Amino acid sequence: MPHIAVEEHLPGITGLLEFRKDTAQPIRELTQILLRGTSTLTEGERELIATVVSNGNNCKFCTAAHTAAADLFLGESETAGMVKTDIAAAPVSEKMKTLLTIADSVRESGKLVTTTHIEKAKAEGATDLEIHDTVLIAALFCLYNRYVDGLGTALPADPGYFDVLAERLINNGYMRLPQGYDHLKK
Amino acid sequence: MPHIAVEEHLPGITGLLEFRKDTAQPIRELTQILLRGTSTLTEGERELIATVVSNGNNCKFCTAAHTAAADLFLGESETAGMVKTDIAAAPVSEKMKTLLTIADSVRESGKLVTTTHIEKAKAEGATDLEIHDTVLIAALFCLYNRYVDGLGTALPADPGYFDVLAERLINNGYMRLPQGYDHLKK
Repeated sequence: MPHIAVEEHLPGITGLLEFRKDTAQPIRELTQILLRGTSTLTEGERELIATVVSNGNNCKFCTAAHTAAADLFLGESETAGMVKTDIAAAPVSEKMKTLLTIADSVRESGKLVTTTHIEKAKAEGATDLEIHDTVLIAALFCLYNRYVDGLGTALPADPGYFDVLAERLINNGYMRLPQGYDHLKK
Repeated sequence: MPHIAVEEHLPGITGLLEFRKDTAQPIRELTQILLRGTSTLTEGERELIATVVSNGNNCKFCTAAHTAAADLFLGESETAGMVKTDIAAAPVSEKMKTLLTIADSVRESGKLVTTTHIEKAKAEGATDLEIHDTVLIAALFCLYNRYVDGLGTALPADPGYFDVLAERLINNGYMRLPQGYDHLKK
């Protein structure tokens, strides 16, 4: 049972974003800019960063949600599966391997990101902005994972929930749906 | 040296918030709502949560900044000093001790927040909203600490910097200063 009174039919982050809508708004905006805004990283690549961090933090709701979103963007489920177990062996670009490695370090502690990590990323063509965004996405999912688990939120009863959520995250992004779209919230 | 090209005269978070202003805006808004918005927790108490989390994550810039802000709100430096070493012995309310303990658990992992932690907080009068805000402030500072350290930002050369920053955080809050206030950014 969640530690605070969230709406029962809203699992994971979804109940928290409704519990306090004023704090939810900037969290949604930041996520929308970082994961869906203009970037030289694809949306699928950015969802992989969210997936690696959530998985490393063992946040089941966030891992399932962003794995499903990455799978839908990439059109296959092998890549998201692989980055969670072995970044070096995953079928992503060499640049993405360096960025996912940085994200996984940030997850543990920002202090673990070394000059060597950064040099490797730049040698593979990563720009300052890509490195910045990777670190901030990783940091943002450290926020999400702690928010979701720190308040003891529930997992959905039906695992098919995440397929519906992923479709929504791809078609509508991270902003709050206007009234009248309640069927998409379920 | 920072891992990316931030303005040299802007240490810690300040250079990052200028590096990408569109992502900075919702981060500032979320912080402003949580740390300065209407709340049954005082501004000093909320700065103590930021201090405990930043100190636990060993983020020197954030710890110094929020310790200075807490000191200024509280009018003394003993309390912020104490919560960093021994929450149970610190001169804060019993409710605040339970909330600071929850924040320190969230810092490590959201999964470490137990039903016992929550029951103790509620027994001391903590509301659902106070527990929510404590968890979200702790999660937000896990983002900040990783952002600041993950990009290798610099500390200011002059430790007196933090006194000036704290005055700004108290008088102007967390939103970006309009043009013409550059002297306050130093």
